[in-house]
Amino acid sequence: MDRRSFLRKAGLAGAGAGAAALATPAIAQGNQTWRMVTTWPKNFPGLGVGAQRLADRITAASDGRLTVQVYSAGELVPPLQSLDAVIDGSAEMSHGAAYYWQNKSPALSFFTGVPYGMTSREMAAWVRYMGGQEIWDEIYDQFGVQGFLSGDTGTQAGGWFREELTGLDSVKGLRFRTPGLGGRVWEKLGATVTNMAAGEIFQALQSGTLDAAEFVGPYNDLALGFYQVAKNYYFPSFVEPGLATELVVNKSKYQELPSDLQAIVKDVCQAEYDQVASDFYANDPRALKTLVDEHGVNVRQFPDDIVEAGAKAAAEILGELRDSGDALTKKTTESFIESLNILRTRTEGTDGAFVEARKKYFSI
Amino acid sequence: MDRRSFLRKAGLAGAGAGAAALATPAIAQGNQTWRMVTTWPKNFPGLGVGAQRLADRITAASDGRLTVQVYSAGELVPPLQSLDAVIDGSAEMSHGAAYYWQNKSPALSFFTGVPYGMTSREMAAWVRYMGGQEIWDEIYDQFGVQGFLSGDTGTQAGGWFREELTGLDSVKGLRFRTPGLGGRVWEKLGATVTNMAAGEIFQALQSGTLDAAEFVGPYNDLALGFYQVAKNYYFPSFVEPGLATELVVNKSKYQELPSDLQAIVKDVCQAEYDQVASDFYANDPRALKTLVDEHGVNVRQFPDDIVEAGAKAAAEILGELRDSGDALTKKTTESFIESLNILRTRTEGTDGAFVEARKKYFSI
Repeated sequence: MDRRSFLRKAGLAGAGAGAAALATPAIAQGNQTWRMVTTWPKNFPGLGVGAQRLADRITAASDGRLTVQVYSAGELVPPLQSLDAVIDGSAEMSHGAAYYWQNKSPALSFFTGVPYGMTSREMAAWVRYMGGQEIWDEIYDQFGVQGFLSGDTGTQAGGWFREELTGLDSVKGLRFRTPGLGGRVWEKLGATVTNMAAGEIFQALQSGTLDAAEFVGPYNDLALGFYQVAKNYYFPSFVEPGLATELVVNKSKYQELPSDLQAIVKDVCQAEYDQVASDFYANDPRALKTLVDEHGVNVRQFPDDIVEAGAKAAAEILGELRDSGDALTKKTTESFIESLNILRTRTEGTDGAFVEARKKYFSI
Repeated sequence: MDRRSFLRKAGLAGAGAGAAALATPAIAQGNQTWRMVTTWPKNFPGLGVGAQRLADRITAASDGRLTVQVYSAGELVPPLQSLDAVIDGSAEMSHGAAYYWQNKSPALSFFTGVPYGMTSREMAAWVRYMGGQEIWDEIYDQFGVQGFLSGDTGTQAGGWFREELTGLDSVKGLRFRTPGLGGRVWEKLGATVTNMAAGEIFQALQSGTLDAAEFVGPYNDLALGFYQVAKNYYFPSFVEPGLATELVVNKSKYQELPSDLQAIVKDVCQAEYDQVASDFYANDPRALKTLVDEHGVNVRQFPDDIVEAGAKAAAEILGELRDSGDALTKKTTESFIESLNILRTRTEGTDGAFVEARKKYFSI
């Protein structure tokens, strides 16, 4: 990372003592301050708010012995340099999503979520009880960092579409903003996939440069106003069954912490995995109600042939990842698939079967 | 609670100084030891193990300043006197399930789970973001204690049946061990519901005193050997969509803790809400595979007319609770139903729809 460049961007290049103070953790009365860079805009519902809350909880539980100072996307480094900042020591922690770092290892996608992959409960079960954390550690060890699950959005929305989808044929040539592996699934279905920053989506949908865009879900999407320019809101996202966030720490600095502070960091990350999910589960449906009742949004399900073709494409993509030639990515893919095939028997046969029964028969 | 009686049962009545030492928290070098009584047998998969792990995590995160000593069911007090032990100060903490204390307030059932009620994600969303915790606090304030969610089993199994169920008619007169509100649902369906301790179920099923029994799910049930005497294992439990556990603390003692220790107790409880669920999600399907592959168990789904009649009975029971005449129970029921009706739109329309799509189309 270009350190002068990020100081300049943060408006600190000429600040002298100020910049120096930022570059070194403050230690006063036995307290230390760690810098947490994030990939999220300040106050971004669910995720940016969650990063701040996670920091505050570590500070509170440690009585300030480990005080965490949050820098939102761009405040200290550009969002997609957050991991590099932890690697090079400009920050002690990064809050983001592992799939942003696919260029470092394609295997990292699995720790955020992949098309037709794990739900938030399945992800936690894999990471905590089925070898996922150990593999994740092996990947991040190469960079001197360690990752912890720190939140999850739950299953996301499938996206905003200007026109109603009539079937797989209507996907051909569709100009669709949907990033990552999900975008590759839609490409296989015939869409013309593009990526662009969140702030540009509205204008592109409005002008017709885009036919469709996928972002997160109602809680985030309501704030961005997409309902003004596209009225068809499709559910669920079969390419994003969950989006797990991560806290990444500089491993050697983490290991130098006394064991109680290490425990607090881990405990708070795990608490936040629940807290962030709770936030989305509570606020997504309230936001969706506003979208429907106040903004005339049409909630739709994808036509079945799209859902089916998406499943085939997703399986192909996971197979391509497994066989991409990188040993650790192969190992990760195999562990993920083996665990998913065990976990899904419970999710689909027990929890999912209950949800279906309740949907069908229970009203109160 | 009869204090002499519980001391006698714990074999401590004549121990003199030993009993006195137990009755007062140890304070040494600024550290204090809190006693956690639990309703679970020692090493009970998922729940008893979870209580011990929760205690150890508080001890570790506080560097021993708050050391938690666990007493399994019956070690200090009988399991169903755990809450009373916290109320009268014989213990500082209790780990169990709120619905055990229905005799104190029927509203407490809602914080464990009710028939056709909330999944584990919905429960956390209600408690943390939709007013659930505040109502729970109001209930427990009457007894000078405070509750925190501390785990969840996820949706449970529907039970072990000696004979295959052919429909609602086959429920009439069925001698079924299934406790609590779930039992009341099955009673409305025509079953003859009985309750008995876990240790007695096997013998009763074997002798034919029982036709069926419901306990937890594969992870717990495998250990109890029910597969030897009943081969039909039904899924899912529509009366136990989740079982949330609680940590209850003596409120005044909790408030006397420094704020960092208060934060640690809360953070660890929330981390354990995720950890226990992860444990069940990972280990239930592995145990079920063993039951099927090695013990010839038949996994079945309840006939549709039973599931439908169960939904009607559950709605009646929630209505009866709401109108039972207790103001706080009415308030709790109304908050629960209102929140459930919001939350289920996400669970059923997004997460559940994804799980259905994956079940139908995705194989790898």
